[in-house]
Amino acid sequence: MIITLTTDFGLTDPFVGAMKGVILGISPSAQIIDISHQVPSFDIVEASIFVQDACRYFPAGTIHVIVVDPGVGSARRPIALRLNEAGSVFLAPDNGVLSRIFSSGSARHITNDSLFHHPVSQTFHGRDIFAPVAAHLSKGEPFEFLGPVVEDLIQLELPRRPVILRVDKFGNLMTNLLPAQLAAGFVIRANGTEIRRLLSSYSEAEPGEIFAIEGSSGLIELCINQNSAAERLNLRRGAEFEVETASLNQ
Amino acid sequence: MIITLTTDFGLTDPFVGAMKGVILGISPSAQIIDISHQVPSFDIVEASIFVQDACRYFPAGTIHVIVVDPGVGSARRPIALRLNEAGSVFLAPDNGVLSRIFSSGSARHITNDSLFHHPVSQTFHGRDIFAPVAAHLSKGEPFEFLGPVVEDLIQLELPRRPVILRVDKFGNLMTNLLPAQLAAGFVIRANGTEIRRLLSSYSEAEPGEIFAIEGSSGLIELCINQNSAAERLNLRRGAEFEVETASLNQ
Amino acid sequence: MIITLTTDFGLTDPFVGAMKGVILGISPSAQIIDISHQVPSFDIVEASIFVQDACRYFPAGTIHVIVVDPGVGSARRPIALRLNEAGSVFLAPDNGVLSRIFSSGSARHITNDSLFHHPVSQTFHGRDIFAPVAAHLSKGEPFEFLGPVVEDLIQLELPRRPVILRVDKFGNLMTNLLPAQLAAGFVIRANGTEIRRLLSSYSEAEPGEIFAIEGSSGLIELCINQNSAAERLNLRRGAEFEVETASLNQ
Repeated sequence: MIITLTTDFGLTDPFVGAMKGVILGISPSAQIIDISHQVPSFDIVEASIFVQDACRYFPAGTIHVIVVDPGVGSARRPIALRLNEAGSVFLAPDNGVLSRIFSSGSARHITNDSLFHHPVSQTFHGRDIFAPVAAHLSKGEPFEFLGPVVEDLIQLELPRRPVILRVDKFGNLMTNLLPAQLAAGFVIRANGTEIRRLLSSYSEAEPGEIFAIEGSSGLIELCINQNSAAERLNLRRGAEFEVETASLNQ
Repeated sequence: MIITLTTDFGLTDPFVGAMKGVILGISPSAQIIDISHQVPSFDIVEASIFVQDACRYFPAGTIHVIVVDPGVGSARRPIALRLNEAGSVFLAPDNGVLSRIFSSGSARHITNDSLFHHPVSQTFHGRDIFAPVAAHLSKGEPFEFLGPVVEDLIQLELPRRPVILRVDKFGNLMTNLLPAQLAAGFVIRANGTEIRRLLSSYSEAEPGEIFAIEGSSGLIELCINQNSAAERLNLRRGAEFEVETASLNQ
Repeated sequence: MIITLTTDFGLTDPFVGAMKGVILGISPSAQIIDISHQVPSFDIVEASIFVQDACRYFPAGTIHVIVVDPGVGSARRPIALRLNEAGSVFLAPDNGVLSRIFSSGSARHITNDSLFHHPVSQTFHGRDIFAPVAAHLSKGEPFEFLGPVVEDLIQLELPRRPVILRVDKFGNLMTNLLPAQLAAGFVIRANGTEIRRLLSSYSEAEPGEIFAIEGSSGLIELCINQNSAAERLNLRRGAEFEVETASLNQ
């Protein structure tokens, strides 16, 4: 059984190692896969993008643990979300990180502390709650035993205006635009630069050209071939920009 | 069988990959878990904290490899430490990195070079000695076959005065104080700031407040909720500070 | 079956996680090992060194995926290289990254799109072509089914003059010199510093001495014990230097 981990714990501290030890102590044959531990600290929006962009490539039945948790030790609930009867399970704090996938699942408030690692610290629920619960689920613990049904999960407010959602390692700028929105022609104005071309691969670009492309996550990205659009446009995450389209299909 | 790796090799160079190749060539079903490869270069104290904080969460029988090795190629001995008959095994250079757990185990000087990867380089014992020995142990090689008993392991001198042991990714300051030492009331003076509150979770703090808390490793940490205490107090690892306590319980 | 991954995707973005999800969806028992995801962006030379230095330590039959791919989406071919009948398989874009091992293998142009992850994006062949093909191979798909034989793989031009090939995490300078070239005596002149000693371990060095040593990859490295030769000599990757030898054996 696969268990994936997505956190903001970084790769230097022993936090992730401790989580894996707890998992393997309960479920020795679990296959643990790191999605990322370099989500920016406390950044729920970024983590919610990771959940959408990486987790959906895993087979049904995978257990995904997402611990980006500014409210650890507070009253915020630990929750489990199952996509459907045969589907994947997501374990996370109730802070909005699962907003992008919530509509299609059923959720539980994780209260069954017989599944926790004791003593439960007030500062590290990743190790003491989420890791052991994931391990027990991977061994066949029924989803229904985690705790009572919840339906009022916290929802993230996602921006409606055109905005840079995130910048990847190559300096590509992921936006919240869908390809269909640009299909009939467009001008994007970002920091004084106009972008008018929607390409289907990096290699179609002229040298140095800034262009739009459907990124691997299905959203429009602003790119330069083999160079950083983030640097050239001097844009970072959260930056807004303007779009004029010939017709809005969506 | 689980084999964990803790090194200062970083995550860019192909060193860790080579170690894993050697392990899997000998022991194809070994489950290799990274604790951290970002221990600061040659930093034995930091590595000894990692051993204590992450390794203890793994099940009995786990083989832990710790390669932070300023003396590679010198006369320093490669050693193996077993916590007890049924316990975990730690493989490391004899440089003090196992000091915090030594008192409860029995140790061997690893001299049985039929277990090594040949030719043995003088610069990479992680790949040529520690990785293959771990792999052979995971396949059932008896601990006693590694080499002769040793009892004079190098011990780290740990500081007795109140000191910052390490700074984590969130800027929390791990000290060498135990919670019991602060239980009856205290004042910590660090770089001109006074800290008087011992909280049980981050979320109890006032906005911006610097407080003490029992960290996930069981030691006192100095923290700010969702902010870096290291930056605010301008303290780094090794910095000393003052503690006045109502009574010293320990 | 082992599948290793070497990319320039970094460890922050969800790219590597998505590749792993695709692999495990097809081949649930694959053992996925990260070599490095921190190859500098688009750096084919560096990646080719990683292939040589880490991959050769893995057992025969391992499937190695190397995705450093400045030409993703262009006409450059995805290729598979098998070292010999029972040997390991390397999957990579045809951009020279396999040059150092090409002479000993047979290659295929990967065209069998029934093995791909659909829809195939134009920006992420790691996820949509290389990962699923590796997974199918690990389940026994015959090498010959990948596509037609190719013999005209792109070859990297490697430098012939003495040069720094790469700098590792400790500041050691890997050169393109072989130990035999220095065996009969030598002077290396690098940025105004003369190096005359070939040592067999770091610990033989005088404090602060810059020396030559056979590194773990079998090539000569320029080092300082527990210090950064790169900083002291102010040299970085690609820098040339002079060597005078008593006799050139190779």
